[in-house]
Amino acid sequence: MELDPRLYLVTERSHLEGRSFLDVVELALQGGVTMVQLREKDASGREFLELALALRTLTQKYHVPLWINDRIDIALAVRADGVHLGQSDIPADAARRIIPREMLLGISAGTVEQAVAAEAAGADLLGSGAVFPTATKVDADAVAESTLAEICAAVHIPVVAIGGVTLQNLHIPMAAGVAGVAVVSAIMNPPDTLAAAKALRDEVDRCLRKRND
Amino acid sequence: MELDPRLYLVTERSHLEGRSFLDVVELALQGGVTMVQLREKDASGREFLELALALRTLTQKYHVPLWINDRIDIALAVRADGVHLGQSDIPADAARRIIPREMLLGISAGTVEQAVAAEAAGADLLGSGAVFPTATKVDADAVAESTLAEICAAVHIPVVAIGGVTLQNLHIPMAAGVAGVAVVSAIMNPPDTLAAAKALRDEVDRCLRKRND
Repeated sequence: MELDPRLYLVTERSHLEGRSFLDVVELALQGGVTMVQLREKDASGREFLELALALRTLTQKYHVPLWINDRIDIALAVRADGVHLGQSDIPADAARRIIPREMLLGISAGTVEQAVAAEAAGADLLGSGAVFPTATKVDADAVAESTLAEICAAVHIPVVAIGGVTLQNLHIPMAAGVAGVAVVSAIMNPPDTLAAAKALRDEVDRCLRKRND
Repeated sequence: MELDPRLYLVTERSHLEGRSFLDVVELALQGGVTMVQLREKDASGREFLELALALRTLTQKYHVPLWINDRIDIALAVRADGVHLGQSDIPADAARRIIPREMLLGISAGTVEQAVAAEAAGADLLGSGAVFPTATKVDADAVAESTLAEICAAVHIPVVAIGGVTLQNLHIPMAAGVAGVAVVSAIMNPPDTLAAAKALRDEVDRCLRKRND
């Protein structure tokens, strides 16, 4: 499946507030999300697998790739399109050796050095952040706009900005050269998921058109 | 590597009390441990991998198999001899599909039903417990001696007893028909690891000889 990282939904069930997880993700897909990542920091392996299988069915319906955070074993078990690893997860080179050639690899990179190393180790996509203060990941180091631009310039693979991205501020990382934005709260928090996703996707596309003008 | 589950050390770093992890495991290996499992419930993927790589080097020196708890991805990355999964981890059939044919699969089974299902799904070894009250896993359901004997009789693969096993009580699960015992505290708590492992191994071997008489 083609890599289109324009609007990358990273799921966190803690944001549901009683709503159905699959319903919220489906509305986001209808709104124009181009990738979905299942991130489950506290789930058991079995629960993670069950959620991943349910999400795989849903994302396939919308022809949108499913990525798995951290757990390569879950990604293998559901034949996910990609797996995303942070700097404290299994390193990219070790991951490349145990995932199939067709499975894409995303790596979190907060510095130019990490970004270049990840690309050299076989990463297909980088996530850089937190580009703005975020309540979702309070321990995330901040990535300055200038660093983000340097990262984008230093690698040949697409970079997505993550961390505190909103409809109002996404033009800033987009101007720095990212291929898209990854969001948790901006899609999972608003009561109208569909409208939130649509507005974000429209804004990303507007920024991309502006950049290509 | 041959499956010899007579004395199965399950590691937990919380029991070290300042001692070196690798030193303690090495003494246990010198004392006669026949399998080592790395169990890390809270480590990051990267930390887990680094520990697993260090343990692999050590266990290879003693020609003893290394098993990994839960994280199939770590097991794949270090080419572990086996992976052990609990009932809340990825199910045995899904695990079998993503691990190489030569990697052994252990499954926790607390009932005859779980044991038979695990064997049918491709398990090579079962861990049954807790056979005695244990401080290591306070949430573990108790497995009665009679259930343990039923499990051993119901499957063709070896069963190891786990949970609160000591030098004093291991003859009880051995009499129920298990192929060996898995221990955490009985090896990792005593200050003299070598002597503790030796005594346990002697006692397991004594029980096996008695059974074969």
